[in-house]
Amino acid sequence: MNMPPYPTVRLMPKGDARAIRHGYPWVYANELVTDRRTKGLTPGALAVLEDANRVPLGLVTVNPASKIICRMLDRDPEAVIDTDWFTAKLSRALAHRARLYAQPFYRLVHAEADGLPGVVIDRFGDVAVIQPNAAWADALIEPLTEALVQVTGVSTVILNASGRARSLEGLDDRMAVLRGTAPEAPIPVPMNGATYMADVTGGQKTGLFFDQRPNHAFAAGLARDARVLDMFSHVGGFGLAALAGGAASVLAVDGSEPALTLAAQGAAAMGVTDRFTTRKGDAFAVLEALAEEGETFDLVVCDPPAFAPGKSALEAGLRAYERVARLAAALVTDGGYLMLCSCSHAADLTRFRNASARGIGRAGRRGQVIQTGFAGPDHPLLPHLAESGYLKAVTFRL
Amino acid sequence: MNMPPYPTVRLMPKGDARAIRHGYPWVYANELVTDRRTKGLTPGALAVLEDANRVPLGLVTVNPASKIICRMLDRDPEAVIDTDWFTAKLSRALAHRARLYAQPFYRLVHAEADGLPGVVIDRFGDVAVIQPNAAWADALIEPLTEALVQVTGVSTVILNASGRARSLEGLDDRMAVLRGTAPEAPIPVPMNGATYMADVTGGQKTGLFFDQRPNHAFAAGLARDARVLDMFSHVGGFGLAALAGGAASVLAVDGSEPALTLAAQGAAAMGVTDRFTTRKGDAFAVLEALAEEGETFDLVVCDPPAFAPGKSALEAGLRAYERVARLAAALVTDGGYLMLCSCSHAADLTRFRNASARGIGRAGRRGQVIQTGFAGPDHPLLPHLAESGYLKAVTFRL
Repeated sequence: MNMPPYPTVRLMPKGDARAIRHGYPWVYANELVTDRRTKGLTPGALAVLEDANRVPLGLVTVNPASKIICRMLDRDPEAVIDTDWFTAKLSRALAHRARLYAQPFYRLVHAEADGLPGVVIDRFGDVAVIQPNAAWADALIEPLTEALVQVTGVSTVILNASGRARSLEGLDDRMAVLRGTAPEAPIPVPMNGATYMADVTGGQKTGLFFDQRPNHAFAAGLARDARVLDMFSHVGGFGLAALAGGAASVLAVDGSEPALTLAAQGAAAMGVTDRFTTRKGDAFAVLEALAEEGETFDLVVCDPPAFAPGKSALEAGLRAYERVARLAAALVTDGGYLMLCSCSHAADLTRFRNASARGIGRAGRRGQVIQTGFAGPDHPLLPHLAESGYLKAVTFRL
Repeated sequence: MNMPPYPTVRLMPKGDARAIRHGYPWVYANELVTDRRTKGLTPGALAVLEDANRVPLGLVTVNPASKIICRMLDRDPEAVIDTDWFTAKLSRALAHRARLYAQPFYRLVHAEADGLPGVVIDRFGDVAVIQPNAAWADALIEPLTEALVQVTGVSTVILNASGRARSLEGLDDRMAVLRGTAPEAPIPVPMNGATYMADVTGGQKTGLFFDQRPNHAFAAGLARDARVLDMFSHVGGFGLAALAGGAASVLAVDGSEPALTLAAQGAAAMGVTDRFTTRKGDAFAVLEALAEEGETFDLVVCDPPAFAPGKSALEAGLRAYERVARLAAALVTDGGYLMLCSCSHAADLTRFRNASARGIGRAGRRGQVIQTGFAGPDHPLLPHLAESGYLKAVTFRL
């Protein structure tokens, strides 16, 4: 399937060939001539995309089961998608991360912007975790894995195929060890002077997200001698960074016991258990309980799950962000800091910031915006999709 | 003028009293009842603002000559605006900067968000520079200066009253030494491991802008062993940071000879003159000349003056940003970086990024967005005005 001659698919006249020539990476199902032959293509099949005048635009992968029916793989319609092809993409991606980070812990491949549509690869030292969130990568996982080992020298490659992105593509969940052996213990990950424990085989709830790295660093810069509350702490992202930044104390709150255990292990590895406490519970309930207990903090960080993952959830999601802001603002000292994060695609920066400011106001507080951050530079975006930068972190001083 | 009883001014029924109660800091001229008495107020006079039902909203300063006719000073309509009042505002502002920065070089007061409408104060160690860009601060400059000395302990206070913001307020330019003696030599300013030379009495073209600090730092992180081009370099903001980050060489280009001299002095103070070159000239002409000379760079930074300072200049400004992007992209190596900055209020992030991406495309290149940065956290914004965050820095990898 990965060599010419490829089947052909064709844009309808209303399809935006110009945008694709300018680098737009996707074709939506309603822009493609979906005759019986196209509908019959195996999800993930490679094909030559032509414009309405039958001029080739490039080599795409086709998934008739997805709203995004084509994803551009190569401007060359005769490209061969083999280990060498993957090696070129991965080498380019690696050069960028090696420049950014002294140690090999980062997102190595961030899908479209790194030329591998739908594919996410995170690197934890000698271990790489592939999330093939598109059908073509499932099909070509072997040359991808081979290239990954060649380019990075990692000894272990884990396939972690799960999550919302795959279900949108009509793909099943799958977990496998493709090379080497799965690590038996969590991997210590150094970031911003902190140590995180990543359980790369335990699933989303216990892995590690690299995207917040610059926002962790910013929080750490505010944390000297501060009492810090890390809400939705996961494995301790903001809390452990704050401790590395000299926080007097950190309370990490999450609903997941395994995540909090990993956070505590990170604190132990850093030798800061005396300044680190965890509390398991529903975030809203804990925020209300802390207020009743009369607790206050110099820095509160809230990094909740996506409250507005899609457009239909936008209004309810914004109300949830407002509620988080209101409950959290009540716990911040006068002159203290409140960092509010959103990983919702549907809530853009302005909407999210306004919801947050509204919540702060409803708590009877006022805040200035001192910082707006996004995902780190190992999470590049195509300019055409830059509006969709999902991660926002807005820091207020109250 | 700074004590009750104050005269009264009144919102028209269409004036947005609710927004003001929620923290919006301004009243526009078309929202205020401007009878003869209000029109007769001295620019900068203090007054009690009432809503249309004569309920007091707070103490404002009134400038009948400005589109922004009222700026909120204090929610308490009976506040006394004296040295103590300024001391409270400045102490709060200082606590934030002292937390952020190990050394006393920062924007100490960023106008509305720091509770001093229109007032900007930059600190260079023992020297503070006040820009009173609103009439009220001109009138109350003495208690402000006294409080500034008390709170910060600076020995020299310079008044630098010039620029567009003042002319919008109907104010003249003025330069004065309010305390101490003006420094005879440029002040060495440590930032991001670099040393900048700031001539704080020489005017805008030779002073220093603190706002780019986090973007300088990001550029420095990309600069190891890189050949760097710093366009519109001013006193060397990005170029010297890149050298501190390990750049192999930096070429700084600016139209101002005094600015380039200060940049060279900074390089000398850092002991990196062997890696630092300057070139005086028109930026567009130099970009074209460098292309003709066949020069390439691993990192190009363009931080031009505001091409779109107001809405009327938006279209022309966006074309200028596109042109900068096109000419600069042609000089970037494959896999290299292009950081494009805008300090135009009128060009929002999306418009600026799109103009930049268009320019990159017209150079026959493609880029991923790896980072979007704004002004540093010593430049806070009121959430109601956060859209107007003027400074944007978008970094592409080509």
